[in-house]
Amino acid sequence: MKRAVYPGSFDPVTLGHLDVMKRSAALVDELVVAVLQNNKKNPLFSVEERVNILKKVTKDISNIRVESFDGLSIDFVKECHAQFLVRGLRAITDFEYELQMAQTNRIMDPEIDTIFLTTSLEYAYLSSSTVKEVALYGGDISKFVPEEVVSEINRKMQK
Amino acid sequence: MKRAVYPGSFDPVTLGHLDVMKRSAALVDELVVAVLQNNKKNPLFSVEERVNILKKVTKDISNIRVESFDGLSIDFVKECHAQFLVRGLRAITDFEYELQMAQTNRIMDPEIDTIFLTTSLEYAYLSSSTVKEVALYGGDISKFVPEEVVSEINRKMQK
Amino acid sequence: MKRAVYPGSFDPVTLGHLDVMKRSAALVDELVVAVLQNNKKNPLFSVEERVNILKKVTKDISNIRVESFDGLSIDFVKECHAQFLVRGLRAITDFEYELQMAQTNRIMDPEIDTIFLTTSLEYAYLSSSTVKEVALYGGDISKFVPEEVVSEINRKMQK
Amino acid sequence: MKRAVYPGSFDPVTLGHLDVMKRSAALVDELVVAVLQNNKKNPLFSVEERVNILKKVTKDISNIRVESFDGLSIDFVKECHAQFLVRGLRAITDFEYELQMAQTNRIMDPEIDTIFLTTSLEYAYLSSSTVKEVALYGGDISKFVPEEVVSEINRKMQK
Amino acid sequence: MKRAVYPGSFDPVTLGHLDVMKRSAALVDELVVAVLQNNKKNPLFSVEERVNILKKVTKDISNIRVESFDGLSIDFVKECHAQFLVRGLRAITDFEYELQMAQTNRIMDPEIDTIFLTTSLEYAYLSSSTVKEVALYGGDISKFVPEEVVSEINRKMQK
Amino acid sequence: MKRAVYPGSFDPVTLGHLDVMKRSAALVDELVVAVLQNNKKNPLFSVEERVNILKKVTKDISNIRVESFDGLSIDFVKECHAQFLVRGLRAITDFEYELQMAQTNRIMDPEIDTIFLTTSLEYAYLSSSTVKEVALYGGDISKFVPEEVVSEINRKMQK
Repeated sequence: MKRAVYPGSFDPVTLGHLDVMKRSAALVDELVVAVLQNNKKNPLFSVEERVNILKKVTKDISNIRVESFDGLSIDFVKECHAQFLVRGLRAITDFEYELQMAQTNRIMDPEIDTIFLTTSLEYAYLSSSTVKEVALYGGDISKFVPEEVVSEINRKMQK
Repeated sequence: MKRAVYPGSFDPVTLGHLDVMKRSAALVDELVVAVLQNNKKNPLFSVEERVNILKKVTKDISNIRVESFDGLSIDFVKECHAQFLVRGLRAITDFEYELQMAQTNRIMDPEIDTIFLTTSLEYAYLSSSTVKEVALYGGDISKFVPEEVVSEINRKMQK
Repeated sequence: MKRAVYPGSFDPVTLGHLDVMKRSAALVDELVVAVLQNNKKNPLFSVEERVNILKKVTKDISNIRVESFDGLSIDFVKECHAQFLVRGLRAITDFEYELQMAQTNRIMDPEIDTIFLTTSLEYAYLSSSTVKEVALYGGDISKFVPEEVVSEINRKMQK
Repeated sequence: MKRAVYPGSFDPVTLGHLDVMKRSAALVDELVVAVLQNNKKNPLFSVEERVNILKKVTKDISNIRVESFDGLSIDFVKECHAQFLVRGLRAITDFEYELQMAQTNRIMDPEIDTIFLTTSLEYAYLSSSTVKEVALYGGDISKFVPEEVVSEINRKMQK
Repeated sequence: MKRAVYPGSFDPVTLGHLDVMKRSAALVDELVVAVLQNNKKNPLFSVEERVNILKKVTKDISNIRVESFDGLSIDFVKECHAQFLVRGLRAITDFEYELQMAQTNRIMDPEIDTIFLTTSLEYAYLSSSTVKEVALYGGDISKFVPEEVVSEINRKMQK
Repeated sequence: MKRAVYPGSFDPVTLGHLDVMKRSAALVDELVVAVLQNNKKNPLFSVEERVNILKKVTKDISNIRVESFDGLSIDFVKECHAQFLVRGLRAITDFEYELQMAQTNRIMDPEIDTIFLTTSLEYAYLSSSTVKEVALYGGDISKFVPEEVVSEINRKMQK
């Protein structure tokens, strides 16, 4: 069984992330979308909220499972008995960091391989932090995140 | 059945190409390694020679098939009834060109997706043209290409 | 009177070029679209054909004038009594070359400034050479070039 | 009337910023230099101080107006009834971020266009944070910022 | 006498840093490895600990001296009566920042020149922060740092 | 004795090349400036002419020797009993290619190391091909090449 893990903060999930999920789910038997519990950053949504939102927006893709994890991505990939780690590539600066991580992971476990998908052009400009900044000043985020997420973000911002 | 096409000139195949082949063959049910018939460039090996060399160096990977093609990669992917196109990423300048091709291909056929694998660090510096230049001046190419290819290249260079 | 020159090969003009033309025409009083007579390259369209095609596709933008020129862009900008040189930016590798040219031009004539516009995302992958390659193998180019140009290119390719 | 907004932190304004201001003021009828009120960062100068410094260093350029704003740049551009947003480009990493912002802004308001000017070579290495670091350790900053700003920065640093 | 300074945080020193030290020590008569006292960052090792670790791992290279410094690198280079500043280059984003610093330093003191060495491929992926992150989650860091440093880091992490 | 080789086409030598020569000559006991005999390209100056021009423009730097060579740079470095290969870095795209060559050379001979110097900002935009293009159309090249080279180039161009 071919299984891949797509780790990330997803705070919030964008249409770019969702695009990568759809495309990588078509490539493997099971895709585990894995929310990183990163205590350092001050998140918009709690890990539990992010897991719930991701379950909602991926409910029509039958071979996606949503989980959360703590620690190194590579360790979680092993724990899932997955052979692949999925990453989306948007831009050059992404690429350098991603390449560095892929090579580090390969040294830590040569059995696990990193697969890269490029985000569709229409989402290439998108990042979770852009979404948060636009939302913070009351801008329209409906072109950036799945429909279900718009109201969740706006509710958070009003607090 | 999940099938991917890995197109290229492979003139000659390097250890970096072979690394990408092994890793992408593990990802799909069948990998078609496809030699591009590019009449414009003045090749070292004919297309037939390259197909034969590739068959030799991949003979231990059971789900690899070697073919040659003419025209656009995306058209050959469709012809093979493959859903994926595989590309190796070595460096930044690669990445820009590859991203451009991936987006163009996506517009031409949204059903076919491009998957990127990064070359292992030890092969990150390698290109077919470097191999040819080193061989031309009698340098040692045994760290750059599969063993079977060393003598083939040296024979060509002596002519 | 603010006048800018947008030089290029435009062989053929793409929807990306047209996007830059529309946006820069909004910025100045007159925009001179300038076709470079580059004898070295083997062009698809003659300079005269390119001028005619550009006149056709820009006929609704009243402050655009189409010309051809030979020599250095910076000299043609001076000849036109223009103060600005317009360039489209698509990608990183573009950017390095363009920056180099902008600095060289600034040293040659500090009175003339280079203005950069980024191509719209939907055209960011587009280049004249991609269009020609796709057309050569009978691919559909209607998403890449203005409608009037599709048949012109296909006619050329059939010869 | 053609109006552009050049937003930034300008903490402090450098000779590179001033170069972009002079060049973009020559391009439009009115240039609004807009100081961002960014509460998150710990600034060297208050917004009021920065507005005053900018007024002083641009006093000889008649079509420049200095303002401050809070929120998204694109919203302030609209508020000013400007059609253009000006950004200086120094380097590759700048370029990626700037391209991302330009595309996001274009989606938020397609009527407003981003114009890029490259900083003159002699200022290409300059950033406000470099200036602050050099000043902090008592280095000479007179080659980095307008004359009027040198003593203002040194006074701040002595506190 | 040709003397160079190789400044850095070295928190912790990696095999990549050590590779640069060996190679630059072969180039000059004396190499000063200089630990930056950066109070802003929350370090893993104190400056004294880092100096001691560096002395231990470079004890077999006779022309290396280990020091610590506060302030601007360029000022410390002058203080050492060195003519050169050594920097390791790993990747593109490094390169931009390093180029900016080299140009700034050249303006501040044209007598001092920056020399760049590229890290060996096997260490190209390595950074001190990667090492710290891997160690934090109990990963194996023996392929990343000199043998003497492994136990020091693990001891720190257990506290 | 520390000896370095600075290989290149130098067709023609620019002020940027001369800057790298001065700076690397200060770093080693002897610098060999090595003109590559590249038969493939159609040169402006013959190898003999380039050697003579280089001797003229470097005559005041006592530890520079000018030579020509054929084949791989790394082989010529060995033949010269040099320990170092010098390269100038201007820009990102340079950097990727140079890094690839440095790593290839390191694999071919680990005893020889590549040293990079960044070109001074004022010459960062300069390339031999830009000089040739400007000269071809009668532009002023006196800011781009050493004084002795201006008339040599103009004479060539008039033929």
